[in-house]
Amino acid sequence: MSEIKFGVLGQYFHCPVKGDFEYAAHALILVDQQGTIVSVLTDSDTQYHAQIEALSAHQQLIELSPTQYLMPGMVDLHVHAPQFPQAGKGLDLPLYDWLQDYTFPLEAKFEDMVFAKQIYPQLVQSLLANGTTSAVYFATIHKDTSVELARECLRQGQRGYIGKVNMDEPTQCPPFYIEPSTETALKETECFIQQVLAIEGNEEQLVSPVITPRFVPSCTAELLQGLGELVQQYQCHVQTHCSESDWARDHSQAQYGKTDVEIYNDFGLMTSKTILAHSIFLTPSDHQLIKSTGASIAHCPLSNMYFANAAMQTREILDNDLKCGLGSDLAGAPIPSIFHTCLDAVNHSRVREDGTSTYLPANERGEQGSRISFLEAYWLATVGGGQAIDAKVGLFQPGFEFDALVIDTAIADSNIFILEEMDSAKDKLEKIICLNSRQNIRKVWVKGQLVVDK
Amino acid sequence: MSEIKFGVLGQYFHCPVKGDFEYAAHALILVDQQGTIVSVLTDSDTQYHAQIEALSAHQQLIELSPTQYLMPGMVDLHVHAPQFPQAGKGLDLPLYDWLQDYTFPLEAKFEDMVFAKQIYPQLVQSLLANGTTSAVYFATIHKDTSVELARECLRQGQRGYIGKVNMDEPTQCPPFYIEPSTETALKETECFIQQVLAIEGNEEQLVSPVITPRFVPSCTAELLQGLGELVQQYQCHVQTHCSESDWARDHSQAQYGKTDVEIYNDFGLMTSKTILAHSIFLTPSDHQLIKSTGASIAHCPLSNMYFANAAMQTREILDNDLKCGLGSDLAGAPIPSIFHTCLDAVNHSRVREDGTSTYLPANERGEQGSRISFLEAYWLATVGGGQAIDAKVGLFQPGFEFDALVIDTAIADSNIFILEEMDSAKDKLEKIICLNSRQNIRKVWVKGQLVVDK
Ligand SMILES: [Zn+2]
Ligand SMILES: [Zn+2]
Repeated sequence: MSEIKFGVLGQYFHCPVKGDFEYAAHALILVDQQGTIVSVLTDSDTQYHAQIEALSAHQQLIELSPTQYLMPGMVDLHVHAPQFPQAGKGLDLPLYDWLQDYTFPLEAKFEDMVFAKQIYPQLVQSLLANGTTSAVYFATIHKDTSVELARECLRQGQRGYIGKVNMDEPTQCPPFYIEPSTETALKETECFIQQVLAIEGNEEQLVSPVITPRFVPSCTAELLQGLGELVQQYQCHVQTHCSESDWARDHSQAQYGKTDVEIYNDFGLMTSKTILAHSIFLTPSDHQLIKSTGASIAHCPLSNMYFANAAMQTREILDNDLKCGLGSDLAGAPIPSIFHTCLDAVNHSRVREDGTSTYLPANERGEQGSRISFLEAYWLATVGGGQAIDAKVGLFQPGFEFDALVIDTAIADSNIFILEEMDSAKDKLEKIICLNSRQNIRKVWVKGQLVVDK
Repeated sequence: MSEIKFGVLGQYFHCPVKGDFEYAAHALILVDQQGTIVSVLTDSDTQYHAQIEALSAHQQLIELSPTQYLMPGMVDLHVHAPQFPQAGKGLDLPLYDWLQDYTFPLEAKFEDMVFAKQIYPQLVQSLLANGTTSAVYFATIHKDTSVELARECLRQGQRGYIGKVNMDEPTQCPPFYIEPSTETALKETECFIQQVLAIEGNEEQLVSPVITPRFVPSCTAELLQGLGELVQQYQCHVQTHCSESDWARDHSQAQYGKTDVEIYNDFGLMTSKTILAHSIFLTPSDHQLIKSTGASIAHCPLSNMYFANAAMQTREILDNDLKCGLGSDLAGAPIPSIFHTCLDAVNHSRVREDGTSTYLPANERGEQGSRISFLEAYWLATVGGGQAIDAKVGLFQPGFEFDALVIDTAIADSNIFILEEMDSAKDKLEKIICLNSRQNIRKVWVKGQLVVDK
């Protein structure tokens, strides 16, 4: 057995089975020097009391209070890092205006390392404080500041998956924010991959490079082809937007006569390490292709409410056992919390189930049976997200990395209101999912390293 | 001019015009001993500097920092006070199960004054901390603990509108939670009104009684008739649920051959002080009747996503100039914040505009042009809410009551991220609406009395 770094004693929640949860009242979780969970003991285990005593004697025991809950770290599969300063503004605008007037000018500013060093540290800190232990980032087209984002994740101890964005199609990109050439884009991307892998201190790959075509319309076929070749060469993670809106779906059909999933597959971009943001307008054959390649979907419900033109087929995706997790889509949505994203995923599925129009009869209004539960949403946020990033996170089980949060429901200024005599474990978990705020999150560990401590 | 109690110097936001906002950079707001705004000065006013000096000399000047914003107090038009301990649990359940298994047993417990005194103070405190300076409450069928809720609002200084709930229809109420008789319900309601009006310290009616039939199905016609007579006699506020769901709408049609609005009108329950929660399935003649009576709608978007079966006609209601504000519908929705309700109102309107089904063509999916803006939602939360409760709150203008919040965007653990050089006043306001949490709210005044101070 490897040497123990510390043990955490207390109650925890996690979801080994999709749609269900497990609660342990007085567990002892042992974490080794590499940040891996070595064992999870209960008081029926013979070693339990001896381990507690030994750890306690060496100041290696972290004991939770009765109002504190250990929970897996949250995985955010889709964050636009440069849009952090934009969070919460302009969301009334049509997508085109929002991109042209706000987003692209802001992303273009990240050519400036000074600006990047002003923004990125605050973003990473904000996500960690909200419980996001793993984040999958779109950076910008600029290699150097994108590498800087990777360095910043490593500095703050966040599990980061970072992509230098690729976009080279002149009809779709503004002149001030486009790759100088396809060739440069590919060269810079390869260089980006090598530099991230070589960052000092990244020997265990806490941060990873992600090959990142922005989406079909903004990339030439030549660029997609070249990026696909880099995927094969480096076996990297991949992320992109997939069939996000009517316009995007129609554009791909008009240009290629295919769906986004088919296009990405043709270019070698669909692998078991691919994360497809949104994936709203999926065909049955898209479902099959996603499943057979082992690619994952990043469900971003709040952003969908603004920009997707429809609700995701979340129920079908869960039922078909496609790999899927949650994304905040910062700043296509304003809230930097995957707890809140769970609530939005439930909400949008409920609106989908019942429909919206008061001018239609009930049976023509919605899509019956399409709701998802809070526990399913929470599973997506933890286990589903972990599978998508191909990391052993999201569960308290031996062999999993210790990415974890301590939630305290009894802080002074909290919206979570627990009544011990009336709330079951499930009630408490649902209250935490719905009402948690960053102030309730008192400690955050990534890979056994304490990165937030209040 | 009446004697000045204090002045607040700093920047403020408010919305005198629906859909627009005003920002003042260095205003001086003078508040008199009664808590009324006497004047709002800018540095072009001759009295401005002299007033600042005079107030400062007498320690009567509250000066905001550059990251602090004065904003009107929020009005929550629909809160189920006894359901506070239920917030965030069981929202996956069908409405019937949610009511039978969770809500009714919980409400029944409020027969017990000890339990009420355990819960209500924490509820009122939580709402105030979230910026809700005025709240319209459904209590329970129990007179004494409902009066206790009014007392608690007064104690903590919240502008409270409190209803003892009425429900006497045996086929719709569980045997453990129903009025003993129609006659008792009416007698207890009258007694409740008198007792609330007579609470010691309530001479200025900071708390008001509200006549509260739960909804059409749970009330006999005799009860509705009697409550209507009390409305005429006492000129009280009225609140109830209105056409919340397909089931409720159909039930009223089956029983009375009328809409809820028509039924309430027939029984004398539609007045300019009536607040209709939800009001989802409105007919054109309902719109007219609501407008002609001057009644108001409490829009509860998050709860609608769970239980209303459709999205409210918010766009039409705004365009028709019906009186309307926002409600949290705690605990039909989990979040005790009207800032968050603004976001949900925008979100649900966006989903309504675009629709949900990916299996339909775009032009058959949604209801074009039905989105509302963040500024419209915020207007509903402040000015619209103030009109609904018939109180002069929601604006910084002479003659209005000083119900106000200080929002600080620069607290240590905040999700609001302002970049001075890139954010316009409108951007800042939208960021505050989207990302505000109770920790950002540093001070709360109701009627010139400081009720939260962090
Ligand atoms: Zn995106
Ligand atoms: Zn209600």
